[in-house]
This record gives sequence, structure tokens and C-alpha cells, in this order.
Amino acid sequence: MTHFLSIDDVSDLPALIADARRLKADPRAEHDRGRGKTLINVFFNPSLRTRLSTEVAGRNLGMEVITMDAGGGWAIEFADGTVMNAGTAEHIREAAGVLSQYADVLAVRSFPGLEDREADYADRVMQAFVRYASVPVISLESAIRHPLQSLADCITIDERKKTARPKVVLTWAPHPRKLPQAVANSFAEWMLAYGAELTIVQPPGYELAEAFTQGATITHDQDAALAGADFVYAKNWSSYRNYGQHEADQHTDWQITPEKMALTADGYFLHCLPVRRNVVVADAVLDGDRSLVLEQARNRVFAAQAVLRELLGELNG
Amino acid sequence: MTHFLSIDDVSDLPALIADARRLKADPRAEHDRGRGKTLINVFFNPSLRTRLSTEVAGRNLGMEVITMDAGGGWAIEFADGTVMNAGTAEHIREAAGVLSQYADVLAVRSFPGLEDREADYADRVMQAFVRYASVPVISLESAIRHPLQSLADCITIDERKKTARPKVVLTWAPHPRKLPQAVANSFAEWMLAYGAELTIVQPPGYELAEAFTQGATITHDQDAALAGADFVYAKNWSSYRNYGQHEADQHTDWQITPEKMALTADGYFLHCLPVRRNVVVADAVLDGDRSLVLEQARNRVFAAQAVLRELLGELNG
Amino acid sequence: MTHFLSIDDVSDLPALIADARRLKADPRAEHDRGRGKTLINVFFNPSLRTRLSTEVAGRNLGMEVITMDAGGGWAIEFADGTVMNAGTAEHIREAAGVLSQYADVLAVRSFPGLEDREADYADRVMQAFVRYASVPVISLESAIRHPLQSLADCITIDERKKTARPKVVLTWAPHPRKLPQAVANSFAEWMLAYGAELTIVQPPGYELAEAFTQGATITHDQDAALAGADFVYAKNWSSYRNYGQHEADQHTDWQITPEKMALTADGYFLHCLPVRRNVVVADAVLDGDRSLVLEQARNRVFAAQAVLRELLGELNG
Repeated sequence: MTHFLSIDDVSDLPALIADARRLKADPRAEHDRGRGKTLINVFFNPSLRTRLSTEVAGRNLGMEVITMDAGGGWAIEFADGTVMNAGTAEHIREAAGVLSQYADVLAVRSFPGLEDREADYADRVMQAFVRYASVPVISLESAIRHPLQSLADCITIDERKKTARPKVVLTWAPHPRKLPQAVANSFAEWMLAYGAELTIVQPPGYELAEAFTQGATITHDQDAALAGADFVYAKNWSSYRNYGQHEADQHTDWQITPEKMALTADGYFLHCLPVRRNVVVADAVLDGDRSLVLEQARNRVFAAQAVLRELLGELNG
Repeated sequence: MTHFLSIDDVSDLPALIADARRLKADPRAEHDRGRGKTLINVFFNPSLRTRLSTEVAGRNLGMEVITMDAGGGWAIEFADGTVMNAGTAEHIREAAGVLSQYADVLAVRSFPGLEDREADYADRVMQAFVRYASVPVISLESAIRHPLQSLADCITIDERKKTARPKVVLTWAPHPRKLPQAVANSFAEWMLAYGAELTIVQPPGYELAEAFTQGATITHDQDAALAGADFVYAKNWSSYRNYGQHEADQHTDWQITPEKMALTADGYFLHCLPVRRNVVVADAVLDGDRSLVLEQARNRVFAAQAVLRELLGELNG
Repeated sequence: MTHFLSIDDVSDLPALIADARRLKADPRAEHDRGRGKTLINVFFNPSLRTRLSTEVAGRNLGMEVITMDAGGGWAIEFADGTVMNAGTAEHIREAAGVLSQYADVLAVRSFPGLEDREADYADRVMQAFVRYASVPVISLESAIRHPLQSLADCITIDERKKTARPKVVLTWAPHPRKLPQAVANSFAEWMLAYGAELTIVQPPGYELAEAFTQGATITHDQDAALAGADFVYAKNWSSYRNYGQHEADQHTDWQITPEKMALTADGYFLHCLPVRRNVVVADAVLDGDRSLVLEQARNRVFAAQAVLRELLGELNG
């Protein structure tokens, strides 16, 4: 593993999940592994779960962890050859280059603008850090992927599945704000790599980019999709096709309710949080005993820890 | 001790003060006690002393400490059953639930609005964290209490008292801004539990809620109250009765001056800081050799450390 | 060393540089030296390099490091005797006094206003911290100096110089914003103490204060200054004479280009970063193999570490 940006950076997913589950059983078992190594987290967008879980993961491995909120004033130039006499104060070459002087591992979060599909899907900020950093880069969610969330989701499903090939449904859900496709894109590609029987269901026009969903069943009938599901993963995302489109007041009947969960095979409910109660999902589902949302949040620590562990192993030779 | 919110959570105050004074003599004596345990501080309102003293306290005990400024953008929903399609992005059930996945001890600061007495005195934010967190919660100042400040004040008075039952005066003082009653409420209930002879003096209309002051002498005559005092604790607070009322330009003669301190029995001056010089207290008092304000600030570390120590003891079984 | 504010606090510069270079070779060699000691960094202005390098330096020495962004709301009163009934909430006496209760070493950053030369050059914020803190104070850049940057620059030049007395040129460069003189002032006084043959070149009106440049050659002819240089240090600063004056669109021909570097004796290029590409310096220079800017950034860690090491040595007796 050189960087950790997507499922493509994982050579052996079952082994990575097994590492995470082993670390979960004894989080400080490898507390010497990161000694004297520094993890710097750079957040261009706010974070609660990702920041805390990644910090705890690094510290569990004995790393020094430094977190920077870069959202406010750090105006970075990404274009080459620019005469920088306007708003941007530092070029990504220096930004990533300097951070690499202080960090052994660099972790970066950056959200999409949701205005320009081509720009967002070029994943410019994350790719620029990868290009100009001289240390491994971990994605803490980029414009188009959220791989640590997906690894945590894999761990959570792995802990609860009763069959080798569980039936997993990723369902679009309503939301008052316009959201990225990152969590859904990532979940799809990780579930397919994991070997789940994946169905993705959304209203017409909300289909995800095909690059992430090859091998999944894509439908528009939520009830049919939920039938017999072992795991239901609810998430809102704005349209990829009509890029960034978002009809806040429509499709309210896509909310996950007890009635819908009753269609499943006593399925578990998953969501990456934060979640809008009684919009995305009804209280009774979220507070019910089949809800795994807090376990997913907990597994974020061990997802990050398994990835850091592997990168440290390579740093340590 | 399950949580630390008020004097009611302390089973043995003299022992807690003794623990703090012992730790002050050798702050890293129990550096192994918190190993592998994480303290997360969540600030919905800004902090200097509380943040730094609590961080130092946790680190003295060997804990991992993470501090989050949550004041900016973390819009939490507190009402149950809400359809969350408007401003709030995360329900307190998930907020506290998720933080509990990452922390062994959770510490929270949240100020009152000073508009709605009933809402403030329900201490909604702190009580919601207590209800939905699955780990011990420490108040870093709530809408109505500031217990770590009060414990630090007890330590400071305990270090300097010359009699078993010192005469302590809590006096209202002028201030240009509208302030909570939290420090005064807490100081009153802790001093009464400590066994001080407590007098509380304020202009008419500024009496504190009776729930905090049972057993204290309540008067309106500042000079008479100060006569023979061993300790003078000055603090502004807005009105409880006429809730939030605050007459910035009145009662300027309540400022603590050298002349007023001369009425005391060579009394010490205390204030929780930050303090408005020459409004609350005259320079000559604050800079004089009977001023204990920096020692109070120092004792905030050992107050927090004694509380964390006790909570860790219970976590460690 | 009591505090670290300028070259005047350094009794033996070659020894300090040697310490830094030794620590660079083995950054955690003295990891026990800072055990149980706390470094608090207070930033009244934003920071990337300084924050990260100082944090890493403290942690390399085993210190506990706490960083505070104080830029937002901490309104400090500096005048004595003020009746504090207006905007300022805490006097520097308490601010510095309280921080000294929690820190073994205090590090402070504060920028100039660039409106009032006398006020800026009194270096009020830094001097007030020095006066009222009871622990050593490190400047993380003040209104008029940036000594940790200058020490890092000395280390960088020391690593690369081929003669005992290298020819160093500090050249003014264009910039779209009005910048302090701090980096240039400091670089001049450190280079002169280091024993470099220093030339400072700038457009007429941009001469630095003479207090910092005694012993340097001061000229207005950039090409002549660059001739035969071993090291070229480019930096913009606003006018000291016409205080804060800044002609953004003029002197664009002062940009450092490959043609200008060709005048040097195969000289190295230095800049403290962040740098405006193709305004201050051309891409081809910055990305060329004679550019030392990332090495300078890296040496910020060991500059801070050498200073902390010396202060800790005195704290430890």
C-alpha cells in the first residue's frame, strides 16, 4: 500500500478486515509500531467522526497525531504556471512538500463543490496531495470517495453476516441538503470487492457513476430491493447525471421506516452518520436493536488503525 | 462517582481535596493510571483556563486528550421525535453516542442563553450528554454550574485557611456584560458543603436561586458582609429573579477596592478569571499579595486531575 | 537563554546550530529531556509551518504540546490602569500569568498592524508576554522578528556553504499584499551574527530599519548584488521608512528568475514560504535543484528543537 485512496489500494481486503478486527479486540496491542512517527490530519472541511476516530487510531499505534483545520484561510493554488498575484497564497507543490517534512503519514479531507462534475471527479485536491507529497497519503474523504468509512462498513458487516455472500442494499434516502456521492460511490466499490450481493436502489436520475457500481444490481423499486436484505445501508446523495441536482421535497417516501425494514430478512440498518432523523430514517429503526450505526462509528477507529498499521509497516521496512 | 456535574456527585469532599493537593505536590505521580484511556473535551463555548487545565490534568495522568471546538458548526438537535429537515444536522443521541465510542471520559462545556430561565435551569445540553453518553461525563461549565472551578476554589481556600470554618464572602461585582450565574451558583453549593461560614451579598434583585444557597447568609450590605472576612470571592452575575437582567452602569460602587478589603480580617481576594480590572476589582487588590487568582487558576489542573483520577479508578475497576 | 526573541538571546550561535544539526541526524535522541514538561503555543495569527514544526520539535523532545488559536476572540488589554468596561476581556497580566501556570515554556505568535510604526516596533504583545509570564517565552514571530525562521535559515546555509564566510544576498521581491518586515529584519541580524558577507538589496524606500542591518552592504542594484552570490534569500516586505507602504504593481522586475540566478556563483535559492510563484520567484528557480525551500521548512523543526532543548536544560537545572 503506497497511499490509501480507494479499494484499489488494498491488495488483500479479507486480511485488512481481519487486522482491524484483531486490533479492535486489543487496540493498543501494537502501541510500539508507530513510536516516533507523526500523522498529520489536514481538514479542508469539518469533521467529527473522522477526526476523532483517526486521532484515536494513530494514538493507539503510538503515533504522534497533529490535526489541522485548513478550511478557514489556507488558499492553495493548484494550477501550474500561474502568476500568483491574486487570492491564492501557497501552491500545492509547497503545501504538500512542506507537510511532508513534518509528517510520516499525511491524511487529507476535501469535499466536492457539486457544481462542476468533471472537476470534482478529477478529485483534484486529493490527487494533488498524492502527487506532491513525499509521504503516504490517506483519504479522509475526497470529492468522490470515503474509503475509511467503507472499510469500517466492511468490518461492521463482516462482524454480523450469517452467510458468505450477504445480501446488501444501498438505498438512496431523502435529505434537506445537497450531498456528495462520495460515501455511496465508495460503499459500492468496497461491497463489490468484499463479495456482497449488492443492490443499489434510487429514484430515476440518481444513479451513481457506473465506474463504481459494475457488478451491482441497479433498480428504482425500493420495496422490491429491500425484500430479503441482510443489511440496509441508507444514504442520500445528489444526482450524478444532472450533476448536483437535489429535490429536497420529493421522494419523502424513500425514508426507511419499520414497515420497510419488515420487508428485509430481519436485516440490519446502517448509516454513516450524521443522520437526519425522521427524514432519512424513522426513529424506531434508528433506535431499534437492528441498528448498527454506533458500531459503524466505533469501527472507524479500527479501519483507520488497520490502514495506518499497514503503512507504518512499510515505513519501518 | 458516575459523572461530575455538581457537588452532589462528590461522596467525600475532604478526600477529593486531599487527592488534589497530593497530586499538586507531584503531578505525574499517577502517570500510569490513565494509560490507554482517552479524554475528549467538547467546547460549545470558548475556553482558555478550562481547556488548558483539563488537558494538562489528563496528560499528567497519562491519558490521551483530544479537544474539539464544537461552537462553530455542529448544530445538534435535542428534541425527540423531530423531523430533522431544517437547521440541525445531528441528534444528541448520535452525537453523544458516537463520542462515547471514542472517549473513555467525555467533558463538555455549554453556556446558557440567559433569555429563558426555565430552559437554562433545565441544563438541557449537559443533561442530554449525561443521558445519551455511555461513558462518564464531566461538566466543564454548564448553563448553571461550574463545578471544576468550585473544586479549585475549595482547594485554594483549603490551602490558606487558618480556622476550621473560615468566613467566606461571595460578593456580586459590576461588569459591562451580561453573565451567567453558573460560577456563583456552584461556589455557593461547594462552600456550603465544604463547611465554610458563607455570606452572599448582592444588590437587591440579584439574589441567586435558593436551591444553591440554603445555609448561607444572604444580605445586601456589602461593607457589613466584608467585615471580618477571611476570603472575598468577587463575581458578577446577571439577575436570576428578573432573568438575565443586567444594569451595566449601576452599582459601580460594588467594585472591590483596597478600602473594602481593609474591612476584612486581612482577607484573601479570589476571582475565577478573566476579570475586568478596575470594574470588578481595583488593580491594587488584584496585584496585591492577598490576591489568590493565579493560584486558583493553577489549582484548576489539580481539581480536574482529582476528578479524572477518581473516574479512572472506577473505569479500571 | 532566558527567553528566545532575537539573536541577542543566543550566547553561542555556532553551538546552537551544531545542536540543531545533531538533533536532525537523530531527532528523538533526547526524547527524555522534555518528559513531564508542557509547551503551550499561542497563535494570535494563523500558522502552518511554525505550528507544525514547533509541535514536532516539542514532541521529539518528549514534551506535552498544546496549541491554542487565540486569534478569534481573546481580546487582551495591554494598557495598565485601564478601567476595563469596554471591549477587552482580560488583561495581559492575567493572560500571561495564567498561561504560566499551565506551561513550562510558552511560545507566542503575533503580527504587526503595519499602520503605526512606533507601536509595531515596540513589539508590544511579545514584550508584554515576556514581562508578565513567569516561564520562558519563545517568539514564533513577533511584529518585528521571526527568530526561529532565521535560525532555520542559518542551519540551512551552514549545511551547504563551501566557504567560511559565504556571500549571502537578501533581496526584496514583489508581492501582491502588504507584508511585515519581520523575516527580513531577523534574517539580517542572524546572518550578520553568523558571519556571512551580507548584501541587502531593495528598491529605494524599502530599506530596513538600520538597527537590524549594521554591517551589511545596502544597495539598490539587484543584478550587481546577485553577482557571485552563494545564497539568494528572496522576500517581500513593506516599507519601513514610509511605514507599511506597498506598491503592488511596481518593481515586478525584481522577481527572481533563472536569468538572475545565472548571475550568482551557482547560488542556492532560499525563501521562508509561503511563496507567490511567478511573482516573487519563477517556477524554474523554485523547482530547480538549487532551491532549498523545503529544506528550510524541514530545518524549522530542528531550530525549534535546539532552542527548546536549551531552555529545558535550564529548567532541569
